[in-house]
Amino acid sequence: MNASEKIAALRAAMKACGADGYLVPSSDPHMSEYLPAHYRARAWFSGFTGSAGTLAVTADAAALWTDGRYFIQAERQLAGSGIELMRMREPGTPELENWLAEHLPAGGTMALDGAVCAVATVEKLEKAFAAKQIAVCDKDLTGAVWTQDRPPLPATPAWLLDVQYAGKTAREKLADVRAALGKAGAQATLVSRLDSVAWLLNLRAADIDYNPFALAYCLVTEDAAQLFIDTGRLPGAARAALEGEGVCVRGYQDVEAAIAAIGADTAVLYEPAGLSYRLQRAFLSNPHVTLKAGDEPVAPLKGVKNPVEVKNLKNAHVKDGVAMVRFAMRLEKAMAAGEDVTECDVDAWMREARAAQPDNLGESFSTIAAYGANAAMMHYAPAPDTCAHLAPHGFLLVDCGGQYRDGTTDVTRTYALGTPTEEERRLYTLVLKSHINIARAVFKQGMAGMHLDILARGPMWRETLDYRCGTGHGVGFVGGVHEGPQNLSARGTAPFEPGMTITDEPGIYEEGRLGIRIENELLCKEYGESEYGKFYCFEPITYCPIDTKPVDAAMLSAEERAWLNEFHANVRKTLAPHLTDEENAWLADACAPV
Amino acid sequence: MNASEKIAALRAAMKACGADGYLVPSSDPHMSEYLPAHYRARAWFSGFTGSAGTLAVTADAAALWTDGRYFIQAERQLAGSGIELMRMREPGTPELENWLAEHLPAGGTMALDGAVCAVATVEKLEKAFAAKQIAVCDKDLTGAVWTQDRPPLPATPAWLLDVQYAGKTAREKLADVRAALGKAGAQATLVSRLDSVAWLLNLRAADIDYNPFALAYCLVTEDAAQLFIDTGRLPGAARAALEGEGVCVRGYQDVEAAIAAIGADTAVLYEPAGLSYRLQRAFLSNPHVTLKAGDEPVAPLKGVKNPVEVKNLKNAHVKDGVAMVRFAMRLEKAMAAGEDVTECDVDAWMREARAAQPDNLGESFSTIAAYGANAAMMHYAPAPDTCAHLAPHGFLLVDCGGQYRDGTTDVTRTYALGTPTEEERRLYTLVLKSHINIARAVFKQGMAGMHLDILARGPMWRETLDYRCGTGHGVGFVGGVHEGPQNLSARGTAPFEPGMTITDEPGIYEEGRLGIRIENELLCKEYGESEYGKFYCFEPITYCPIDTKPVDAAMLSAEERAWLNEFHANVRKTLAPHLTDEENAWLADACAPV
Repeated sequence: MNASEKIAALRAAMKACGADGYLVPSSDPHMSEYLPAHYRARAWFSGFTGSAGTLAVTADAAALWTDGRYFIQAERQLAGSGIELMRMREPGTPELENWLAEHLPAGGTMALDGAVCAVATVEKLEKAFAAKQIAVCDKDLTGAVWTQDRPPLPATPAWLLDVQYAGKTAREKLADVRAALGKAGAQATLVSRLDSVAWLLNLRAADIDYNPFALAYCLVTEDAAQLFIDTGRLPGAARAALEGEGVCVRGYQDVEAAIAAIGADTAVLYEPAGLSYRLQRAFLSNPHVTLKAGDEPVAPLKGVKNPVEVKNLKNAHVKDGVAMVRFAMRLEKAMAAGEDVTECDVDAWMREARAAQPDNLGESFSTIAAYGANAAMMHYAPAPDTCAHLAPHGFLLVDCGGQYRDGTTDVTRTYALGTPTEEERRLYTLVLKSHINIARAVFKQGMAGMHLDILARGPMWRETLDYRCGTGHGVGFVGGVHEGPQNLSARGTAPFEPGMTITDEPGIYEEGRLGIRIENELLCKEYGESEYGKFYCFEPITYCPIDTKPVDAAMLSAEERAWLNEFHANVRKTLAPHLTDEENAWLADACAPV
Repeated sequence: MNASEKIAALRAAMKACGADGYLVPSSDPHMSEYLPAHYRARAWFSGFTGSAGTLAVTADAAALWTDGRYFIQAERQLAGSGIELMRMREPGTPELENWLAEHLPAGGTMALDGAVCAVATVEKLEKAFAAKQIAVCDKDLTGAVWTQDRPPLPATPAWLLDVQYAGKTAREKLADVRAALGKAGAQATLVSRLDSVAWLLNLRAADIDYNPFALAYCLVTEDAAQLFIDTGRLPGAARAALEGEGVCVRGYQDVEAAIAAIGADTAVLYEPAGLSYRLQRAFLSNPHVTLKAGDEPVAPLKGVKNPVEVKNLKNAHVKDGVAMVRFAMRLEKAMAAGEDVTECDVDAWMREARAAQPDNLGESFSTIAAYGANAAMMHYAPAPDTCAHLAPHGFLLVDCGGQYRDGTTDVTRTYALGTPTEEERRLYTLVLKSHINIARAVFKQGMAGMHLDILARGPMWRETLDYRCGTGHGVGFVGGVHEGPQNLSARGTAPFEPGMTITDEPGIYEEGRLGIRIENELLCKEYGESEYGKFYCFEPITYCPIDTKPVDAAMLSAEERAWLNEFHANVRKTLAPHLTDEENAWLADACAPV
């Protein structure tokens, strides 16, 4: 079936159950960003494969909302599907819920799979639907239509991350969560986000590509912790170790029964954007439970990395830097020899370089190896039959990262493959200025991404340029490549704290022409203290040279130049013990002061 | 009576009516920042005369909350009163409502004057009080205790600002408000903030020092507008003109009756922080009324100045610049002649210089003339018996502004009275860098004060310095010197729009040593547009040289130096036609490039 046939089948299923509309979010029961194949229903229905997007279908209209990272890709993938592309946060684009309220009949019914729709999503719909008395109905039509070739639920082997890597035991982390619950006036919470379950119990698996997580919930109460997981894939030793930490292990499907079994009067903290509509109703059915909406309690705890995690993470970044240097040298040699190199080769070489590093567990996301105009698609992924061949001009953008037993990495470098033009130098240096402005920032305790974001965008705005995505995001520890609560954008409200990491990745993307991005991971640390309070700054923990060939040094201030040279001196010093003489010679050249 | 005697009398009144606590906000029935003398109850009870502060009294404790601008002043003025100073937003300072919840007995009663307490204030108290079942009771104990020498309600002559100044008629503005109400899903609102009533009806008076407002309400419904004002002070011609604009004029005390008389089913928009608890209850008593909490609808309209206002405002700033130049020359001459000059002289000279300008209506606030360490108090006001005598060293900070028939101004200059020390030059130049960073900003549509604030504070944070107040505020048009909705601070959420003005006034305040502040007013205007959206920037509309004697030019970037020189070239060009030859010669010197 192609997309329009699938939409037709969905409409038939809607009609059969009396629904006037159906919502297909990009989600699983854990409100994940990256999904097990089983849950990629939005991609299956629409053909649009980006990581973010919501499909809404009514009797005579279908539309898909996605954000600026994916406008170009979505436009191509939706062509001919009959699905209208809605460019989120662009002037004139209707909000999903308002569009639905307009397109659905008064008194009608909107169906959705309550198992994969967040409470917050349903609340938004219900608010927008109130005036027209449109009802929301929990009905899984995805399962009714997507019957053939649907991948099964994943159940990869689960394993425990040793405390020498994690820094804290599950028992200690559970105590921290209970303390946070107490502060929020609650006695229990269902930890349902996969990154939070993984961090909380030092539990890992490989249920989702690139994300070392197991499909699981953890119900934390004052005196117990219950892990809900497909127990068949949990080795006996791991199960025993968890039980030793005070964790009772139960089947994945037992979560609803456990919610129903809460016996004492209990205030349960829940995050409206994290809990599914279906499980919310399970809680509401239990008269002992008082639901209390609030922030997810695990995210702020895991967002601040402990000293053991920081030490390990830096080690992972050293290995990642070595892999990046080896890749760059291989690329340089191949290009100099006039070999035919494709984006897919870049992808493969990058993967090989990381796989050769100790304790590597694979990549942290699908490498973006984008040459020339392809790099204007922020989340481009090359495919064997369509990937571009590199030529000795223009930019190659490589955004990639690794999973290691001692940390997760994310780095972007943009390489000038020939002699850059004036315009290429101007734009590249502008991106570099933006990057350095964040990296050099000194800021007061309490400041969040929304306060710092202008440091990156300011130099671009002066040229009426911008990028249609955030400036940076948090990264998990042997976890997801996008983890909060910190976020570097005009919408980032979680204050930075020492121990948090954040990517710094401004870019310029000109459709049909080029894409430039320079990304380091930064560690927030203490800068100083005075009568005015505490001040923080960032330390780059990415150890990989930034291509200086396209830098127009005249565009950099003295402070910016000093930062770049100091950064390179530190990269060289840090990587040198791990490289061969030939590699060190190459690195010395790459790290030469500008 | 001194402060402790007044507090004792208040406690007796509390006891008499069975109240366990009493709240004295800094407010009037219109939730004004600057108050008619009649309503300065917090200052009368506590002795602390700053513009912001809340006093809370229980049977055995009394405390006053104020912000960083007033810490030094409040500490001095509260000494010996038995009232504890609560430094707002400092670590460890309890929130007012939590402190009260802790100090009041369970099941007790908290009294307050509902006529001068905002709905939002009472809601916060009620939330904090819920667990201990403390009741809030609307009871005016201020009137019971403050019986002698209490100033009467003001009733200064009211007058209409001609449309040649205001740019829009009351009828046009009422139509704009009704359109805004419609967008908010409401049919009516009670405009209760004095600056909003003044702007909406082009009505002015002098009920509050420095604020050209009349105590008045305006009830706007779909087909009527009712002004509630002491009618005795409204000239017949003004009344007739208002009626010609579709405004029905009624007595100030008639507002409650009018609320009760709303006959048709009406959704009334109200701002919880702007409406009094007492009038909210009046609305709630009317079964035809549905109250709808939201933003005040007038503020965003008046926050964006229309082209006629902008033209007039620039003219007012030219006159203000002339006054500032004449003051600065007079000061310079007196100091050079070795005369004894006090802070009070500075205050008087400044007032004289403004009064000599056409259409001057007085000052827009009490001049802050602060020499040396006095300037560390951000809102210092010199008094005849204690004011400092200027000496040929250190800084004199002068923050002042004028009311003119064509606009309201606010400007701060810090003058080096002798040869500045190295440290003085360093701190002064740091403040100047912060100022220029905001003035030079280019930013995208949608950005608010919270996004821009770091541009000012960034250079200071690098030195672990900061200032305990916002970076800037909106200014009214022939209105209040602090008007929103725009606000330049980490808490400013209203996006900047072309036509808005904002002060740019970073500073450094070192207790016991010095205070430095440099303030211009900036006009937001369009910068450019591209595929990425609209971009805005600022134009300084303060035309007064910035003292360059203490500038360490080596600390300025090339762009910052260029901004300063361009600013001065424009000041010189703008003021030249209005000055004598001698004044122009002085100005040329003051505006010489650095």
